[in-house]
Amino acid sequence: MAQHHHNPNQEQEQEQELPPQVLVLSPPPVFTAFQHNFSAKFRILKAYESPLSTDLFLANYAHSVRAVLCSGRTPITADLLRRLPSLQLVVTDSTGINNIDLPECRRQRISVANAGSVFSKDVADFAVGLLIDVMRRISASDRFVRRHLWSTHGDLPLASKLEGKRVGIIGLGSIGTEVAKRLEAFGCIISYNSKTKKPNVTYPFHPNVSQLASNSDVLIICSSLTDQTRHMINREVMSALGKGGVIINVGRGAIINEKELVECLVEGEIGGAGLDVFENEPTVPKELFGLDNVVLSPHRAAFTEESFFDCSQLVIANLEAFFGNRPLLTPVTDC
Amino acid sequence: MAQHHHNPNQEQEQEQELPPQVLVLSPPPVFTAFQHNFSAKFRILKAYESPLSTDLFLANYAHSVRAVLCSGRTPITADLLRRLPSLQLVVTDSTGINNIDLPECRRQRISVANAGSVFSKDVADFAVGLLIDVMRRISASDRFVRRHLWSTHGDLPLASKLEGKRVGIIGLGSIGTEVAKRLEAFGCIISYNSKTKKPNVTYPFHPNVSQLASNSDVLIICSSLTDQTRHMINREVMSALGKGGVIINVGRGAIINEKELVECLVEGEIGGAGLDVFENEPTVPKELFGLDNVVLSPHRAAFTEESFFDCSQLVIANLEAFFGNRPLLTPVTDC
Repeated sequence: MAQHHHNPNQEQEQEQELPPQVLVLSPPPVFTAFQHNFSAKFRILKAYESPLSTDLFLANYAHSVRAVLCSGRTPITADLLRRLPSLQLVVTDSTGINNIDLPECRRQRISVANAGSVFSKDVADFAVGLLIDVMRRISASDRFVRRHLWSTHGDLPLASKLEGKRVGIIGLGSIGTEVAKRLEAFGCIISYNSKTKKPNVTYPFHPNVSQLASNSDVLIICSSLTDQTRHMINREVMSALGKGGVIINVGRGAIINEKELVECLVEGEIGGAGLDVFENEPTVPKELFGLDNVVLSPHRAAFTEESFFDCSQLVIANLEAFFGNRPLLTPVTDC
Repeated sequence: MAQHHHNPNQEQEQEQELPPQVLVLSPPPVFTAFQHNFSAKFRILKAYESPLSTDLFLANYAHSVRAVLCSGRTPITADLLRRLPSLQLVVTDSTGINNIDLPECRRQRISVANAGSVFSKDVADFAVGLLIDVMRRISASDRFVRRHLWSTHGDLPLASKLEGKRVGIIGLGSIGTEVAKRLEAFGCIISYNSKTKKPNVTYPFHPNVSQLASNSDVLIICSSLTDQTRHMINREVMSALGKGGVIINVGRGAIINEKELVECLVEGEIGGAGLDVFENEPTVPKELFGLDNVVLSPHRAAFTEESFFDCSQLVIANLEAFFGNRPLLTPVTDC
């Protein structure tokens, strides 16, 4: 951060030699894991390490910052965007972009690049892991053994078989497609819901999510959070799924009406849930902590070393493409 | 149990009408779950509910009992078999038969029927569930959230990706084959060890388990416990697997030298383990309770309602075949 530019000419000369600036408001997880790779290519403006207030920090760099790097957690608001008049690129280490004000980016002609499908296989693996865990009670079994109950409390209740279960996938993008591929190997029967029926997909399509639920034993939420998907999974959908039904969420917490989910779980209106995402992270509804048919995870479905490395390379490649006036590798095209 | 046979002629008449006797020393889990189906077809002699000592109970029925139903937990010893001179069948609700003295059965021409492959898919599902859980830290994540650490302790360490991992399957029978099929869908690279190379199998075969380990990131134990497999996984094999390596065991606990496994886990000589079976069940080495890279389960890999029902039907069909002088459905042929 400590730059000593007393001579304007010298400053200009240095600017030409220095790597391009990238603003980071709070450190994205992928950036934290591979910071040295970023620092080798860019001058990272770490707002979060500055003694200045964010307001002052932004004011200082307002006219020079052309690119911001963010995570899926940092809100990129219209207010922030207006305070960075030179901004041309928002790049995120997340696939989800619900934290970015896309209409405002569009208005200001700011490009957005996300993580594309770099995490899809890991998130799909995690969704399947959560499903096996809930249906076969693995975390509950682990808890049972660690509490020394095996020798004194006999057997846990019987679990449910995966083979033959009807799995409804909500959002058949790259994650949903990978989930389907894996669960076919377990003998599950796949159908799906998405905005529109996919060409070249043979799984049955249900245009209505309640209809999908009433034809499913399991719902796996793999969609992104948009105005259309917010609170799409409500009490009506869960009632359609039924008392033995299981919900897995690796999309975003707010796709489910969390209050109604908690009620349905507590009242036994559905059979169980595996949740990697929540409406108000890191807050998890306390009613869930007492339930053995629920598996809780702190938004970890994408967190592997291998994917983090791949994502760091992709984010760097997007930034290099931008600064080199080449097309972005994974532009968000609908903004 | 309460039979009142005062008139020998009447007794004989009743004997002809009564369903055949099946001795149960301690209740197998599948029998417990579907007892009514067994009681509808057989007279179950419940030694465990009798006020008589086991010795007296056995003496009472020594000359009439032709069939014993057991689980994988009850030792069927040479001593027991000698005390039941009319015995012709041991039927178990387990696939593993290491609790049965097979040489003694052979000597006394007692047939043995096991659960065949009725549990194979469930056990394979569970093995894959344990693997995802260990590699992606699902139970550890659940514990982290339930302990309210998410908001205060930031992130857990990064996990490992499944895709591209080299998985060595030990015992490529019906369970191992199902595990391989599932893990191929995750992009894992399969090879295996078994007594002999399997014809018509294209996965690379390693005749030596240490050689398999040194070419693997993960070992999944799907074999049965025999004199040849006892303590087959020892410190040497674990060293060959290496510090990042993961061991999953859904076979039998004693296939691993458990003392050396615990040492290797505590010392960081391997990366983690998912264990459904232990050497001295229900005792689990207490050193494992403190480890976050270990998932523990109380011998539950076969425990689903669906498989238990299927197994109950198979055990009943084996008993009916025996009493009807027809061939057993799932005879253990190597005894």
